[in-house]
Amino acid sequence: MGMDINFKFRQIGLIKTPYTDSAPRQPIDSDQGEFRIEVFPEYTEGLYGLEKFKYIYVVYFIDRVKKKTSMLITSHWVRDKKVGLFASRSPVRPNPIAISIVRIKEIIDNNIVISGIDAFNNTPLLDIKPYVKKVDCKADANSGWIDEFEGNRGQQPE
Amino acid sequence: MGMDINFKFRQIGLIKTPYTDSAPRQPIDSDQGEFRIEVFPEYTEGLYGLEKFKYIYVVYFIDRVKKKTSMLITSHWVRDKKVGLFASRSPVRPNPIAISIVRIKEIIDNNIVISGIDAFNNTPLLDIKPYVKKVDCKADANSGWIDEFEGNRGQQPE
Repeated sequence: MGMDINFKFRQIGLIKTPYTDSAPRQPIDSDQGEFRIEVFPEYTEGLYGLEKFKYIYVVYFIDRVKKKTSMLITSHWVRDKKVGLFASRSPVRPNPIAISIVRIKEIIDNNIVISGIDAFNNTPLLDIKPYVKKVDCKADANSGWIDEFEGNRGQQPE
Repeated sequence: MGMDINFKFRQIGLIKTPYTDSAPRQPIDSDQGEFRIEVFPEYTEGLYGLEKFKYIYVVYFIDRVKKKTSMLITSHWVRDKKVGLFASRSPVRPNPIAISIVRIKEIIDNNIVISGIDAFNNTPLLDIKPYVKKVDCKADANSGWIDEFEGNRGQQPE
């Protein structure tokens, strides 16, 4: 399916988390333990000015999902509902690229101490982008089909 | 620099825009012309339920940037300021992955008619993820170093 893109992506660092066996499905700000992004030393200078931001997008490679991609999935959020893969945040996707928004706690040299992230320990990092409130926080957004089931369960969407 | 990731990414569709020669640096909601995402037919079922969302993240491959990545860049936003690449939204990055938030206007079969996006015509599509307000709109976020220069220029950050 689709067409292969002939480009080698580059690992620019690692995500350090307490999750060696299982990870939650969405970042949990109050997660206990150490969450840290370590960029390789040659990228340290690229972090200059990042400490001014409260939040960042972390773009990473989901290297531990082995399941086959389906176009219709059962969300763990609502048991009896099937939704399209692209209407979900399932990690099983045609391209294993994950995006999480995390809070910056502290930047020390090539390390960014962050709030909780739903990634396994040593996950390959692909990119960091600043979360810019005036561009990225859409006050008139909704939560789609998840809104319809609000209150059904106490979890974040898959 | 970094380490290569041995994974072939997959083009799952195309982004159709009026930009054949130059594109703006950030999505402009009021852009004139047709902006459309066309997923390849085998992915159409994956769009099921997406019409419930107002906004989506479009993840795409920046296939027309040829410049060499620098760790410190001069933002077009503030002329005399250098910032780290990861504190910017510059398209020249170690991994040419772009993320834009756009509004869904209409979904017809395998086509999503969208608000303006800063991509060239026929840009390869990598992923679509729903923008979920309760997860993605961070009301306490800031705009980092851009806040310091607010009002200096009328443009979006690079």
